[in-house]
Amino acid sequence: MSKPKLRIGMVGYGFMGRTHSNAFKSVGQFFDLPRTPELAVICARDEGRANAFAERWGYGSVETDWRRLIERDDVDLIDIASPNDTHKEIAIAAAEAGKMVMCEKPLGRNSSESRAMVEAVEKAGVANMVWYNYRRVPAVTLAKQLIDEGKLGRIFHYRAKFLQDWTISADLPQGGEGLWRLDKAVAGSGVTGDLLAHCIDTAMWLNGGIDSVTGMTETFIKERPHTLTGKVEKVGIDDACAFLARFENGSLATFEATRYARGHKALYTLEINGENASIFWDLHDLHRLEYFDHSDEGRVRGWRSVHITDGDHPYMDKWWVPGLQIGYEHSFIHQAADFIAGLNGEAAAPTFRDALATDMVTDAVLKSAETRQWEPAH
Amino acid sequence: MSKPKLRIGMVGYGFMGRTHSNAFKSVGQFFDLPRTPELAVICARDEGRANAFAERWGYGSVETDWRRLIERDDVDLIDIASPNDTHKEIAIAAAEAGKMVMCEKPLGRNSSESRAMVEAVEKAGVANMVWYNYRRVPAVTLAKQLIDEGKLGRIFHYRAKFLQDWTISADLPQGGEGLWRLDKAVAGSGVTGDLLAHCIDTAMWLNGGIDSVTGMTETFIKERPHTLTGKVEKVGIDDACAFLARFENGSLATFEATRYARGHKALYTLEINGENASIFWDLHDLHRLEYFDHSDEGRVRGWRSVHITDGDHPYMDKWWVPGLQIGYEHSFIHQAADFIAGLNGEAAAPTFRDALATDMVTDAVLKSAETRQWEPAH
Amino acid sequence: MSKPKLRIGMVGYGFMGRTHSNAFKSVGQFFDLPRTPELAVICARDEGRANAFAERWGYGSVETDWRRLIERDDVDLIDIASPNDTHKEIAIAAAEAGKMVMCEKPLGRNSSESRAMVEAVEKAGVANMVWYNYRRVPAVTLAKQLIDEGKLGRIFHYRAKFLQDWTISADLPQGGEGLWRLDKAVAGSGVTGDLLAHCIDTAMWLNGGIDSVTGMTETFIKERPHTLTGKVEKVGIDDACAFLARFENGSLATFEATRYARGHKALYTLEINGENASIFWDLHDLHRLEYFDHSDEGRVRGWRSVHITDGDHPYMDKWWVPGLQIGYEHSFIHQAADFIAGLNGEAAAPTFRDALATDMVTDAVLKSAETRQWEPAH
Amino acid sequence: MSKPKLRIGMVGYGFMGRTHSNAFKSVGQFFDLPRTPELAVICARDEGRANAFAERWGYGSVETDWRRLIERDDVDLIDIASPNDTHKEIAIAAAEAGKMVMCEKPLGRNSSESRAMVEAVEKAGVANMVWYNYRRVPAVTLAKQLIDEGKLGRIFHYRAKFLQDWTISADLPQGGEGLWRLDKAVAGSGVTGDLLAHCIDTAMWLNGGIDSVTGMTETFIKERPHTLTGKVEKVGIDDACAFLARFENGSLATFEATRYARGHKALYTLEINGENASIFWDLHDLHRLEYFDHSDEGRVRGWRSVHITDGDHPYMDKWWVPGLQIGYEHSFIHQAADFIAGLNGEAAAPTFRDALATDMVTDAVLKSAETRQWEPAH
Repeated sequence: MSKPKLRIGMVGYGFMGRTHSNAFKSVGQFFDLPRTPELAVICARDEGRANAFAERWGYGSVETDWRRLIERDDVDLIDIASPNDTHKEIAIAAAEAGKMVMCEKPLGRNSSESRAMVEAVEKAGVANMVWYNYRRVPAVTLAKQLIDEGKLGRIFHYRAKFLQDWTISADLPQGGEGLWRLDKAVAGSGVTGDLLAHCIDTAMWLNGGIDSVTGMTETFIKERPHTLTGKVEKVGIDDACAFLARFENGSLATFEATRYARGHKALYTLEINGENASIFWDLHDLHRLEYFDHSDEGRVRGWRSVHITDGDHPYMDKWWVPGLQIGYEHSFIHQAADFIAGLNGEAAAPTFRDALATDMVTDAVLKSAETRQWEPAH
Repeated sequence: MSKPKLRIGMVGYGFMGRTHSNAFKSVGQFFDLPRTPELAVICARDEGRANAFAERWGYGSVETDWRRLIERDDVDLIDIASPNDTHKEIAIAAAEAGKMVMCEKPLGRNSSESRAMVEAVEKAGVANMVWYNYRRVPAVTLAKQLIDEGKLGRIFHYRAKFLQDWTISADLPQGGEGLWRLDKAVAGSGVTGDLLAHCIDTAMWLNGGIDSVTGMTETFIKERPHTLTGKVEKVGIDDACAFLARFENGSLATFEATRYARGHKALYTLEINGENASIFWDLHDLHRLEYFDHSDEGRVRGWRSVHITDGDHPYMDKWWVPGLQIGYEHSFIHQAADFIAGLNGEAAAPTFRDALATDMVTDAVLKSAETRQWEPAH
Repeated sequence: MSKPKLRIGMVGYGFMGRTHSNAFKSVGQFFDLPRTPELAVICARDEGRANAFAERWGYGSVETDWRRLIERDDVDLIDIASPNDTHKEIAIAAAEAGKMVMCEKPLGRNSSESRAMVEAVEKAGVANMVWYNYRRVPAVTLAKQLIDEGKLGRIFHYRAKFLQDWTISADLPQGGEGLWRLDKAVAGSGVTGDLLAHCIDTAMWLNGGIDSVTGMTETFIKERPHTLTGKVEKVGIDDACAFLARFENGSLATFEATRYARGHKALYTLEINGENASIFWDLHDLHRLEYFDHSDEGRVRGWRSVHITDGDHPYMDKWWVPGLQIGYEHSFIHQAADFIAGLNGEAAAPTFRDALATDMVTDAVLKSAETRQWEPAH
Repeated sequence: MSKPKLRIGMVGYGFMGRTHSNAFKSVGQFFDLPRTPELAVICARDEGRANAFAERWGYGSVETDWRRLIERDDVDLIDIASPNDTHKEIAIAAAEAGKMVMCEKPLGRNSSESRAMVEAVEKAGVANMVWYNYRRVPAVTLAKQLIDEGKLGRIFHYRAKFLQDWTISADLPQGGEGLWRLDKAVAGSGVTGDLLAHCIDTAMWLNGGIDSVTGMTETFIKERPHTLTGKVEKVGIDDACAFLARFENGSLATFEATRYARGHKALYTLEINGENASIFWDLHDLHRLEYFDHSDEGRVRGWRSVHITDGDHPYMDKWWVPGLQIGYEHSFIHQAADFIAGLNGEAAAPTFRDALATDMVTDAVLKSAETRQWEPAH
């Protein structure tokens, strides 16, 4: 009733602008929070479309210049859902203005940008978080619990991949709306920053720091028409990237991401093999966790397909009844809930600093692809 | 902007009150509709809890007597999400007051109640619909498209079951909040009205009318404490029910539902075998449709696991990007969207009359379990 | 070395003649047995093909008249792998001649034939067995162990189906080699005796006697050319059959078999739901057992997919190393092993008498399809 | 009838001695071949056990010294199923004696040994083959057909792993019977030669030559008791190995093998992503091939689970009826069939020379693990 509001200034109305807006709009119906989020301002350059977005989502007002947004007194939190090349400048300005800052991943286009952003929010002392949403898929959160409780024992192996197939056609242009992920100047890198960053964030959360890596990258389609220039231009991003890694805990890892794996749309999978138990998870069936427990009786020991829809599963007491699955967008709702809950207590992760660690790994991977050697990852 | 509002008067704040409220609150962000739903009034007997629900969901006001709700001029649509024994009286009164009526399934506790409700809404000429939400799971909607296009050819077999395990404990009481489904006086029947009604609604939508049935029922736990009376009382509902059926198109069917299938929380599955193709769907992985097409080349012919997350799948262009699944609650959002869209055109199904047909089948099943013979189903 | 031989007289060289021959030829390499099986005589009407079969499999000699086979002193066991209409006469004559008798299922074309066969072998006091091979798929044998140990607790539900799709084409003729299963005069019935008999045998082994049934049958293609007569003739067999059943232990069951389930070649599945645990098995992945144990910790409770390839699984210590699956034919090898082992101890099941119980259920199912009522099953 | 015999001299009666013996004993019942294999001589050092093996499998005679075996005139083919450290010497001597030679994989303990073996068989001009049996799993053979027909189009990615968990316990000793795979002196390497060699053989068969690799290895348990010496000794083998590779056709690959992946017994998986189609296969369900064809209509496009049990699948017309799966051992039977068929025509692969190419890759992988750089693989 008398809960204070948390007034959101959202930058960007694309795919991520929608998932973030939905998170803040829905979270209050399902979670008991110390502050009530309010969709205060949407900021985007195209005023007509910004207005339409504001009406659809119930934003109170519209800005077309992010600098104006940051100047406003009636905004508590700047949420950056615009392309990667805008993250650094907006985040630093927002922090300097004393706003809380949330930022879509990857934090910067490289660890140098990210480091500057970390310094800004830490210097300003503002709450900050990066939208590595997959930590809050309940099955992944449960994996974290199981590992932290020691159920897996010593970890031997970590394995992650993120497979897509949406850029196989040579006719697909680069650049511009929806296609800026193919434009190195905007995105910073290809699948390494876009997909492997997710894999690395989850991996370090679950399994600790990465010591060193060696990787390879490939750009299968070398030239594509550029939407903004109208010309065929060299493709600068990595279409595919795979790397080997050693974690600080002694476990070995393989990581891979590509947009050329025909048949997979967003197949983020991870597997962890421990001395006593193993875990497998798959974004295409995100509501399941596969779990193998060696302490089960031998005759009936097998991988358990756990349907993560019960009240004793993370976050699931907030939703429906057992057996009824939630979807992708709920991971953002959970992250919004944890962020807001953390404002009155321990700050929720991943912070900008956590995300910087991920960017240092991706930098090392890209470097190793050039040096063709192992590179330290931190 | 100037779209007319659709003012909702919701009856009930239980599990279904939440799914319906969520549907009306979210639908406008994802679908372009001729009217804008507004959560106008929540109606429930417990005023304190009704107020809390109103605040959480943003309802404009509260009523504690559904008769008062129906009298209000500022409500367009009465949505009945209260227990089964309240459906008939509320629906008829709402229709007589000229309100649109939506009702949670089953329509009545038996076909006699349902028939009276059909007569009321048809006499009043008001828009009406029953929340058989599974029709609007995109995979199920796609199944309907494929069948209507003739891809399956002549249908030989239909197979459905709905398996749960939540009432196995003999300690579970009957009656009262959350447990009225175990109380025959309130629910009308057990799994037949609760679970098989869903299976039958989908089946007749996909495969046409059911000609005749023969079934069996069982009540495994014969007595349970009653929450309201405080005494151990006879259990009147069916814990399990299975039946054989013949469809009007000549296909054979088996149906089964139970709350005693250890290991299954809400496993609604359906399979249809046609001359040329077959379809399988499963609520525990509701974002997939299994499809077998005999016209595929023999060497590589197999069941296709179709991940129903692409823009060419029903409803999915409204959501995220390929590979990212939606959940249970979205089926309600889709149904709200279709209902509202149908207000300006062809009325969306299932109407009260469609739901009556389902209740005639469940009545026939229950009768056959007593007569131990085949019974006509319409 | 000095182990006595078990001289086999095999009747029939079709599909089942091959599986039985393979069982007796291979069993000695993998199992330690009190007697050494020897492929002594193959008996079939077509002398040329019988000779070719004898050479391929190493049979010592050939007979073209089963009466001659039975008269031979150098044969210990008559194994009947010929079509159903020959079972009764051969089995009775073999028993009267004092031979052990093994018979492919179903025992007779109906329970009347089967009863006469039971009386013959029991009067003669000869070892006898029916090839209901699926009991000896290791996963199914393990299911039996788990049930007998009480791991499932009280059984609520049994569910079995056997789905095929090989007779959908109206062009397929009936009768003659490979197609006698479509000819009622030879087969006795359609899917009921061919497929449901397997389901019933396993079911009664796992879950005890069946009390009563009600079923329906259908013949989708009413007429087919007959290979032997050259004319289009009425099809007498049941193409599909489904029935409801009540077991003596109070559990409910559904059974179904068909040759019109597009996409399924030999999909025999069974599921058992008990108070504490559930089991699922599927012939298309016969080397797995799905097992759900409610006593697992709630957060990580799920269906376990047990890969039945370990040394502690039934029969599997005889084969390869963990992880390496066996196939269909091994169930026959296991049955041969158990039969031979049982000659010096307790006779292995299913005996002719056990198989008669199955035929009484199939008779009741077919009768109920005509009376449209429940029929007693024993 | 008058077909010439192929007299087998088998060296070794362990796990592989059994699979090879079974292959030669069974192949004639299922395949029509130009020569009839005969289990002529079993050769092993322990005479008592060799005699027992001979009796069980029907070997005509026994030798305890492989030199004696090679001298015999009544043996056509020497099949080497003994530990890796014996391969080279026996194979070269057999070739020099003019015998055909088959050898269990890996060919030598390293490419230097293998090269000498290749030279010997090529100089002698004798038929030769290495038991990389997984090529002849029907699903894998079908994958080869599909790739060769161009159904996948340009290949972007290859992915293989072979995961086991049998050596996790630190109590497991190294060396001696059944455990020589842990003894570097005998085995040559750990998982690289044992498991990755299989993955590489299949990969180069399906996807062509490997250009370069970079890998890492780990020995998780550094010391183990040695069965033969009785002392705790350093473990020399690699417990786990992963590597990145580039194929000559421009595709990228990841390979991994380990014996520390809790929950996996023999999980050999491979996946190939092409421009138009993708393939996945898994040894734990070896009778299935997962196939994704992008040319399917979008709405019903999905991974097809093809049950490789139909007559139009490779080798499957020799076995049972559709729907009935075969097992692990059948891959050896198929290889024996192809080898014998190839004696009168084109020699069957993989020859010793093919296997040498695999060993060159494994050598490069092990070298790169030391140099921490990319190494050429041929």
